[in-house]
Amino acid sequence: MKKRYRNGETWDFEHEIGVLGDREVILGLDGGTTSTICICMPIFPFSDPFPDPLPVLSRAVAGCSNHNSVGETAARETLEQVMADALLKSGSNRSAVRAVCLSVSGVNHSTDELGILNWLREIFPTHVKLYVQNDAVAALASGTMGKLHGCVLIAGTGSIAFGFTEDGRQARAAGAGPVLGDRGSGYGIAAQALTAIIRAYDGRGPVTILSSNILQILGLSSPDELIGWTYADPSWARIAALVPVVVACAEAGDRVAHEILQDSVEELALSVKAVVQRLGLCGEDGKGSFPLVMVGGVLEANNKWDIGKEVVNHISKSYPGVLPIRPKVEPAVGAALLGWNFLLKESHMEPCKTSEEWNCTVARP
Amino acid sequence: MKKRYRNGETWDFEHEIGVLGDREVILGLDGGTTSTICICMPIFPFSDPFPDPLPVLSRAVAGCSNHNSVGETAARETLEQVMADALLKSGSNRSAVRAVCLSVSGVNHSTDELGILNWLREIFPTHVKLYVQNDAVAALASGTMGKLHGCVLIAGTGSIAFGFTEDGRQARAAGAGPVLGDRGSGYGIAAQALTAIIRAYDGRGPVTILSSNILQILGLSSPDELIGWTYADPSWARIAALVPVVVACAEAGDRVAHEILQDSVEELALSVKAVVQRLGLCGEDGKGSFPLVMVGGVLEANNKWDIGKEVVNHISKSYPGVLPIRPKVEPAVGAALLGWNFLLKESHMEPCKTSEEWNCTVARP
Repeated sequence: MKKRYRNGETWDFEHEIGVLGDREVILGLDGGTTSTICICMPIFPFSDPFPDPLPVLSRAVAGCSNHNSVGETAARETLEQVMADALLKSGSNRSAVRAVCLSVSGVNHSTDELGILNWLREIFPTHVKLYVQNDAVAALASGTMGKLHGCVLIAGTGSIAFGFTEDGRQARAAGAGPVLGDRGSGYGIAAQALTAIIRAYDGRGPVTILSSNILQILGLSSPDELIGWTYADPSWARIAALVPVVVACAEAGDRVAHEILQDSVEELALSVKAVVQRLGLCGEDGKGSFPLVMVGGVLEANNKWDIGKEVVNHISKSYPGVLPIRPKVEPAVGAALLGWNFLLKESHMEPCKTSEEWNCTVARP
Repeated sequence: MKKRYRNGETWDFEHEIGVLGDREVILGLDGGTTSTICICMPIFPFSDPFPDPLPVLSRAVAGCSNHNSVGETAARETLEQVMADALLKSGSNRSAVRAVCLSVSGVNHSTDELGILNWLREIFPTHVKLYVQNDAVAALASGTMGKLHGCVLIAGTGSIAFGFTEDGRQARAAGAGPVLGDRGSGYGIAAQALTAIIRAYDGRGPVTILSSNILQILGLSSPDELIGWTYADPSWARIAALVPVVVACAEAGDRVAHEILQDSVEELALSVKAVVQRLGLCGEDGKGSFPLVMVGGVLEANNKWDIGKEVVNHISKSYPGVLPIRPKVEPAVGAALLGWNFLLKESHMEPCKTSEEWNCTVARP
């Protein structure tokens, strides 16, 4: 195996630890803008259902690995280090690795994919299978237990709907950021709430309790000060963090907050429906069942006003076969399962499980 | 007079030129983020109508004087230099100045105003009248020929409605930037057009000729590339520059472009109506006449689809007394006329002209 000593001594541990038998492993990575997580999972024999809990040997955490945010060199160093950490923690080294499945944000084109593949190949020998994907793919796999079929809706600071068919076609909708109309996202919801405060203040819009509630949280004494607060820091996450206040106001009966959440529901449902329609995920009669994996803070259950539940209700009016799934495992585990599934396929082992056989929480709308 | 030598030799010329008689002058400044303009105008006796053309002695141009953009020191140096240039060009010096009216963007609070007043006072002796205002005030005055009464609607990259009553009350609406919902602005129009391209591409929205027309202008081959283009540069003006393409598409019959412009019209009209309502500019019966000064690229006459005309039509349904004005003079002249008007008032000379007597283009809706 080619030895590399990037970061000084990233892989030095391999000389120092004894390898535990001939156990083979898969690395699953979920690389995001906030943090990067690597899971080391043993290759387990196919079983139905999956073993519960899944056999995870180790978990390592590092910082941002989105190359658009921190640059290519820093992103790669982070990814390499988190893989080495996970292997060290599991008592394995690179000779035990059968596959690496890296799902990372900022991978939008085949050129992004190829760049990362080339660099991963410098670390791992040719018999190791390498898979590089956008981070939405790991989110889907975390709900479908590694199978690429169905649609994933991610609604956190941003929002995106990503879909895959069994024959390998894919489509996405939304996910173009706040300037390009991600109204359903956490940022979109919060920005509309801030706008509603300004509109109530200058007479263009109705009075709303969003004004007092949000100004209090931000420590501002007047809507005038909101302008300075808004443009003082370009971070989208800082604005999206106000979503719980908007939900609380809607739950308290505020009409303006209610309408903002309703708009978000319609936008999120529309992005899923666009993907389902383009891929024909619902079958020819529009009634076929398909999994919808739902991920991100905006979709998590609220008390009375549950955005995720409303989105599913909305979608099921057009596509009654929607099977909403809230993943039981994290995206890095989804990535590892995805790698495991790819390996199975490539080695002509047992066929992948069908959509009815997933071991996951399926909540009917 | 106190002598100052900021910028090395800003005022050196005063020792070198002979002063032309005892002619007294007013300086009117329009300080913006793109450029700063200073007009030197002689004090002329009150006449009705105003002399046409107005007696302007000189005009000097400099760069940005918004202290939020370039910092306080650079902003002040720019303002001082452009005043010195205008005086030099007019053959006057500071001893001829009776009043300075400075209308500058970034002046939003009385603390901003006081800071600039204190510094202006270091340049000009105490008998010189000093007035500091937000730049919307000069825009209004450019339409009302120096009188602070009525409403000004500015729609360029951003948008704002600003209103004043004869007894000194004022109100504003919109003008809080793109995150806080300036949908009617040039940026708002163009961002909605870019969003429409993404929505048509991913199946969430109808097909529109905005796609081909805007991608061609930007030299992009696919809507996918629009995301990178949008976030590559945070300048709002770069996006707002696409407004003429949206107007051309609407004029060619594109429904999506038409609806975006229609939305802009409603938003701009709403911001004016909010100001008129709050200030009672329309009188008790809602039918009183009031001037509406219209400024900025978005409101300039287009061929078939005239946003400014549609805005006036919309407002006149609620307030039939609206008197739209497209200024014949630039805002710096408006500032000089404002200074002239303040002087008149303070010296108990002839009363200000009434709204029926302005020498300006009044176009009935």
